[in-house]
Formats: sequence, structure tokens, C-alpha cells
Amino acid sequence: MKKTDIKILHKTYAQLDGKEVTVAGWIKSVRNSKTFGFIDLNDGTTFAGVQVIFNDTLSNYEDISKLNAGSSIIVTGKLVCTPEMKQPFEIHASAVEIANATTDEYPLQKKHHSVEFLREIAYLRPRTNLFNAVFRIRSVAAFAIHKYFQENGYLYVHTPLITTTDCEGSDQMFKITTLKFNDLPKNPDGTVDMTKDLFGKQAYITGSGQLHGEAFALANSKIYTFGPTFRTENSNTKTHANEFWMIEPEIAFCDLENLMDIEEEMLKSVVGYVLENCPTEINFLDKFVANGLREKLEKLLSSKFTRIDHAEVIKILQAAPVKWEFRPEEGGDIAKEHEKYITEYFGGPVFIKNWPKDIKAYYMKLNPDGKTVAAVDLEVPGAGELMGGSQREEDYAKICKRCDEMGVDKSAIDWYLNLRKFGSCVHSGFGMGFERLVMYLTGVDNIRDSIPFPRTPKNCEY
Amino acid sequence: MKKTDIKILHKTYAQLDGKEVTVAGWIKSVRNSKTFGFIDLNDGTTFAGVQVIFNDTLSNYEDISKLNAGSSIIVTGKLVCTPEMKQPFEIHASAVEIANATTDEYPLQKKHHSVEFLREIAYLRPRTNLFNAVFRIRSVAAFAIHKYFQENGYLYVHTPLITTTDCEGSDQMFKITTLKFNDLPKNPDGTVDMTKDLFGKQAYITGSGQLHGEAFALANSKIYTFGPTFRTENSNTKTHANEFWMIEPEIAFCDLENLMDIEEEMLKSVVGYVLENCPTEINFLDKFVANGLREKLEKLLSSKFTRIDHAEVIKILQAAPVKWEFRPEEGGDIAKEHEKYITEYFGGPVFIKNWPKDIKAYYMKLNPDGKTVAAVDLEVPGAGELMGGSQREEDYAKICKRCDEMGVDKSAIDWYLNLRKFGSCVHSGFGMGFERLVMYLTGVDNIRDSIPFPRTPKNCEY
Repeated sequence: MKKTDIKILHKTYAQLDGKEVTVAGWIKSVRNSKTFGFIDLNDGTTFAGVQVIFNDTLSNYEDISKLNAGSSIIVTGKLVCTPEMKQPFEIHASAVEIANATTDEYPLQKKHHSVEFLREIAYLRPRTNLFNAVFRIRSVAAFAIHKYFQENGYLYVHTPLITTTDCEGSDQMFKITTLKFNDLPKNPDGTVDMTKDLFGKQAYITGSGQLHGEAFALANSKIYTFGPTFRTENSNTKTHANEFWMIEPEIAFCDLENLMDIEEEMLKSVVGYVLENCPTEINFLDKFVANGLREKLEKLLSSKFTRIDHAEVIKILQAAPVKWEFRPEEGGDIAKEHEKYITEYFGGPVFIKNWPKDIKAYYMKLNPDGKTVAAVDLEVPGAGELMGGSQREEDYAKICKRCDEMGVDKSAIDWYLNLRKFGSCVHSGFGMGFERLVMYLTGVDNIRDSIPFPRTPKNCEY
Repeated sequence: MKKTDIKILHKTYAQLDGKEVTVAGWIKSVRNSKTFGFIDLNDGTTFAGVQVIFNDTLSNYEDISKLNAGSSIIVTGKLVCTPEMKQPFEIHASAVEIANATTDEYPLQKKHHSVEFLREIAYLRPRTNLFNAVFRIRSVAAFAIHKYFQENGYLYVHTPLITTTDCEGSDQMFKITTLKFNDLPKNPDGTVDMTKDLFGKQAYITGSGQLHGEAFALANSKIYTFGPTFRTENSNTKTHANEFWMIEPEIAFCDLENLMDIEEEMLKSVVGYVLENCPTEINFLDKFVANGLREKLEKLLSSKFTRIDHAEVIKILQAAPVKWEFRPEEGGDIAKEHEKYITEYFGGPVFIKNWPKDIKAYYMKLNPDGKTVAAVDLEVPGAGELMGGSQREEDYAKICKRCDEMGVDKSAIDWYLNLRKFGSCVHSGFGMGFERLVMYLTGVDNIRDSIPFPRTPKNCEY
């Protein structure tokens, strides 16, 4: 069969005026009189649909008139430009083939459905305006990320999902197995014999590709990952999911200042690409989901991100005329309420750098002060922490010392530590949670609405 | 620090003639006389390195001369074009900073290492010429795939990795858990109480995103996935891995003929992009890994893919003057030896379509003959099956009947079956194993050398 995407029609309708076209899609609504009617049709390739006009010269006029929302049809007809109307063109149908008529059982009717209800029918919600907009922005943003890194000479590396080493600690990782839970092979002492598992030992699905990414950065200088990541957190909040996508760039011969330059440039590039390629979606979300969304994104493009030490941030928070739930303390972490205040204080994105070493990971570069590490979090207005990165400790003796101090088992990551002996260099990297970016770009405030089929504790439907 | 990628130098050396540049990377080799020496340096942003000339006016001349392969250095010097030499330019060093000198312990010396040895040091092998070429082609091909689909109006969908439904059967999937193997909660009957697990039931990591992809195709018309996939196969062959990446496009209002058009166009687009963007890598692999690689890829671009029924292929195989290991039989499967013969017979890629229903999946569209399904495999010279796809059964009653015949539990996929009630339409999709594409594009004959950190039975290092 031959058909034209509705997206193409919206791009080329001026040239198609008076020509015959075939489109296929799903009905949003039908309204009709005795002799003619209107169908609001969309095929999901674009945000805006098309209006189809049909009349009783069609032999199946009665059947078409009775169609419910969600029914699929194939329409052939003449495209007619309508410069005087709200929509730029419409289709005058010469034939409407009914592919599949839905019954009243169809859960999506032409009325407002709550996001909570829509989560329960995750397999149908992409048909709604909200998720049409959110998931297109998600797709376009994903491409914008690939485009930025590829055009800037980065290698895309598929770091492994199944792993026996991990940078986040194995208690936060899902165990995987091919063994049968009700028939586990046992050692003489009664424990489970993991040597009988497919990999001959306990394996996990990963919480980060950073360690493997560093190995490639020390070969190819500039690399990035983009893949799914898993955490076992038993936490039911608006910002936690057990499966999410991450981007983890890693760059050799790059210090913390260079890293912030890259983070800032990359984010602006992605936001700019989305604004350019999803104007209708952004306008819809601005109007119905997050007032001021467009302005927030446009402002980001022209703002210079603030760069400030963690210690300075604490001073600002302590001096603030605010009654904090969590008291900001020297050497302490920064809570959600502080993140919010500090981006408002500076009126834009803020890099908070040089964090107290005790609340950060072993692989981060210890600063000359012996108290802080060269770590940086990027806080953005309305979404909090969007990226977390650091300069990595490149000295073999120093990273071993940090492992010992923090109780990290060096034997499990000997290959990673070896990278510090075999052509080590100053290098840095960051991680960006992709769902958090999608939330920032769309204004949706629950991670469950930023990913097609969310996985959260007790919730793994579909 | 400020440095220039060696890739950029190779693109712009003509304009940089006589100018000072700073580059940083890893030493391939050093050779020197008493007063001057040459360093073969690469930073991995490109295939070709640069030649650095240094002399004894440098205060650390002796230290530089003693550097081993793999050492990291930062070189500042004058770029000098050398049109009369093999390399187009070289750098006359005014300063060489030693970042990290490797010792004799460094496993990669300037000699030939077998791929088997290199697999054992997977964290260092990207520094070799072979893997520099293979992993760059992998990265460029991944981008070419995104580019093709995005430019053609497809939505990139992140289908879930953690799932409780799967199209390939749960016995082929890894189970995941947060329970402790040596302290499992039990039901009164002694079986494991999976309600205590994070998701409240047994969950898996997926073997395919197809079912979820179909839900989005029936909302957005044209979608694709690109993500990791897992199979538990306990198989040690050159073409099996337990973790691999897949691309699964799914298209609404698309029949089997349309699907083949898309597969052919997409493959040509990707091959063309790789030939254009990785000429040096392809030439290297053509010379040292797979003679005739470039010719094979260029020929594909201009060839028209053959389209032939499975039954006809069997007849050709049966009439062939070949002593088969596996006898080709009507209604039977097609073995590796047959795939090879048939692509040679037609001198190019071959779509084998309309397969016997009994050897294919329940979701494939039953043809009017009642014996075959509208499935299609794409066979390519030198790599065998590269894509497998089908038109999907869009009729609710018919797909339910096929489930019953094939013993598929309908209650586990009720939402998927419901898609046939709620605006169903003719739709089709295919899957392409990304590692198989990388093998086809690079000529490497073992899947372990096409993916950064391969996972195979008993093998999950790093």
C-alpha cells in the first residue's frame, strides 16, 4: 500500500493543493449531519492531525458516521488548502476504508483522562496528545544527543549491561540468573552454587557504564555511552525509577573546567535542537502542562551557567532568609530545597563544584586541599540535578589509597585501576539521566510519564 | 588544558602549516638517534596517528627516548606539512610533557597480538589498530541507523528492558531479582515467594522490544527501537552472545512488500554512510581482515535485492549440485550452508519470504494458503541472515487461534492482543542484530570482536 505521512502533508500541503493523497491513521473524533461529516484524524507522525470531510456519496457513509475514537481508517481524497480556516488544509474524502472499528470497550474516549489513569493503560497512552508530545520530544532529544557527540568527534560505546564489576556497588544492582529458583544447585555447606549459573558466577545488570567508558576514553580520547541503567532502590517518588536511560561521556586530557564547558555546550545544543524541531509540542506543553516552559528553555540558550564551589553555596544557603527543612552545613550534602533556591538565586543553571570528599565516590580526583574532590553537579531551574560528573583520580597510588579508605574491594576492579598504570592521564566524565532531561524539556513532573513503560517497585506491567 | 584532536589535524592540516598546536595521546612507538627521534602518536579520535619529531634541545630528551608503547604524552609544537612524505604532515615538538610512562608490564607491545589474546585484555584492545577500526565503524553505523530513521519520520522508542511479558518465551530470558540467593523467602509449600521481590513477581530482562514496539506503531505509525537484548542460550559459537544490541522498527499500514522496501533502503543508507565516513578503517580491514570488503559493500549499494519465496529457495537448493550436510526440505528450515549458497546463487542479498508457518512465531500473519506466514529473512553475502521480519497478524480472532495452536498463554499478553481490537491495522516490523551488521561491515568473523565487552557462557569479565 502507498500512503503519505501526515507529517509530510503538513510540510508540503502548499504543493499538494488539489492533488489526491492517501492517509491512514486513527480517529480522534467524528461529527456529522445527515449528508456530510468531519473526521479528526491523526497517524501520530506529527502532533497536529488532519480534518477529513466525507459525505453521503460514499457507499459506507453510515458506517463511517458511527465510528468511535481509536478506530483505524485509510482515507483517499483531494487535499484542499484552506487559508481562511484554523487548519491550513483539509482532505475531501473520495474513499474511506475502515481498517478496524473500536467498540465502546476502548478506554480512550474524547474527554480528559488523568495521567494516573493513563499510566494504567501504558500501551495506549502514546495515542493521547500529552504523550504524543512527550515521546516525540524524547525521541528528538535522544537524536540531538547522538548528533552533538558524533559531530564533535566522540565515539559511541556500548558498555556492557551484564557485569560483574560496577561503580555503584553491587547492593544497588539486580542479580541475574538462569538458575531455577525452586531448584537451586547447592554447595556442600548449603549455600547456592553460583558456578552452575550461565556465567559461572553471580552476575548483575549494571548501574553505570562509567568504568568501562573510562577504558575507551583512554584509547579514543572522547567517548559517550547512551543506554539503559538499573537500580534496585525501593523508592516510590516522582523522580525514581528502577530502569532509566543514561548518557555517560568520558574525556581524556580533560579537567574539571573543560568538563563544565562540554556539559554546558551539550545541553544548549540539545535544547536548541528540540526547540527547533518540536515547536508545536513545546507550545502544547507550555499551555497545558508547564506554563513558561518555552521561556525557560529559550532563556537557557542565552544564559551563562554559574560556576561556584560547594563551600560558597553552603554560605549562601546559610545566609538565606529561609527556614530550611534540612540545615545546610559545611561538608554536607545539598537537598532538593537547596537546589531549588540556588538556581533561583542565580536565575539560571548552576555548576556546584569541589564537593566534600566524604560524600562522594572513591574514583573522584582529590583536590590539593585534601578535603574536597573535583566533582561537579549541574543544577537547572525546575529540575534540580541534571548532570553529575567529576575529574577522575588518574594516579594509581592515590586511587588505591582512596579505595582502601572507603572499603572498596580493589581486586574486583583491578583492570580499572590498571588504567592508571598504562598511559593514564587527566580525564573527566559525567552522567546525565535521560528521563530527568525529558522532564526538564517537557515539564512533566513525574518520571513515570517521561518513559514509555515505567518500572517502579511493585510495578512491572506490560 | 587546550588541545586539538588528531582527527581535526587530519582535516585541517593545510591551514595549520607552520602554526603551533598541542596534541595529546598514546605512543605507538618511539625510535631515536643520539640527537633526535620520532614518535608515532595517536589519540584514538581517528585511525591515522601523527608523527612527532623531537630533538635533544628538549630538557627531557632522554626520558622521552625511553618511553614505552602505551605511554601518554602531551606535545606542543609546530605543524609542518610534508607533501613529499608518506604522511601529509608532522609535528616538530617544542615541548613533550610525559603524562604517564608505562612499564614493561604493559601487555600491548609493538608486535602482532592474536584476537584471542586481545579478548583477554578487552579493556586495552580498543588501543589496537584492529579495534580502533572496528569500534569506530560500530559507532558510525549506530549513528547512521538513528539518522536514517529520524530523517524518515520514525519515532525512537525506548521499550523496557525489564519485563514480565516477552515475545521470545521466558525460558530464553534471564531472571532478575533483588532477593538474596542464600536467604530466599518461602511459601508454605516450600517454593520461593516471589511476591517479596522488588516487582512483586518474577521479572526478566528482555529478548525483544517487538511487542512494546507494536503498541507504539499503532499510535505513531513508524517507530524503531535500538537497545540491548539478552538471551540465555548456552552456546559457544562465533555468532552467539548472551548480550547484544538490536534494532526493531515497526510500521503501521505497512505490508510485507513495503517492509522489504524499507529494509533494503535502510541497509543501503547505513552502508553508504559508513563507506563515506570511515574510508581509512574500511581500507585497513579490507587489507588485513577481509579481502574484498570494500568491493562487497560498494556492490551492495547498487544491487537490487532478490525477493523469492521460501518454497522456491528449497527447489533451487534441492536442484543444486551440492552434497548438503542438512538436506533442504519443503516446509523445513534453511541452514547456514543454504544461506551461503543462495546469496552466491543470486550474487547479492536475498529476501526469502513466505515461510512455513510451523517453524515461525504465533504473531506472524497467516497467508491465504493457510500453510505459510508473511515472514521474511534477509540473507546477505558473507554474513547470512541479517534481518528477520514479518507482517503481523492484525486480526484478533486469528491471532488468538494461533496462540492456542502454539500453546502461547494469552492471559500473559492480553494487552498485546487487545491492540487488535483497538484500531488494529496491517502492520509489519523487523529485527536486525546490530553485532551481525558490524560483522558484515567490518569483516570480523567472531561476534566477540564486534562488541566492546562480549558476554558469552562462562565469560563475564570486566
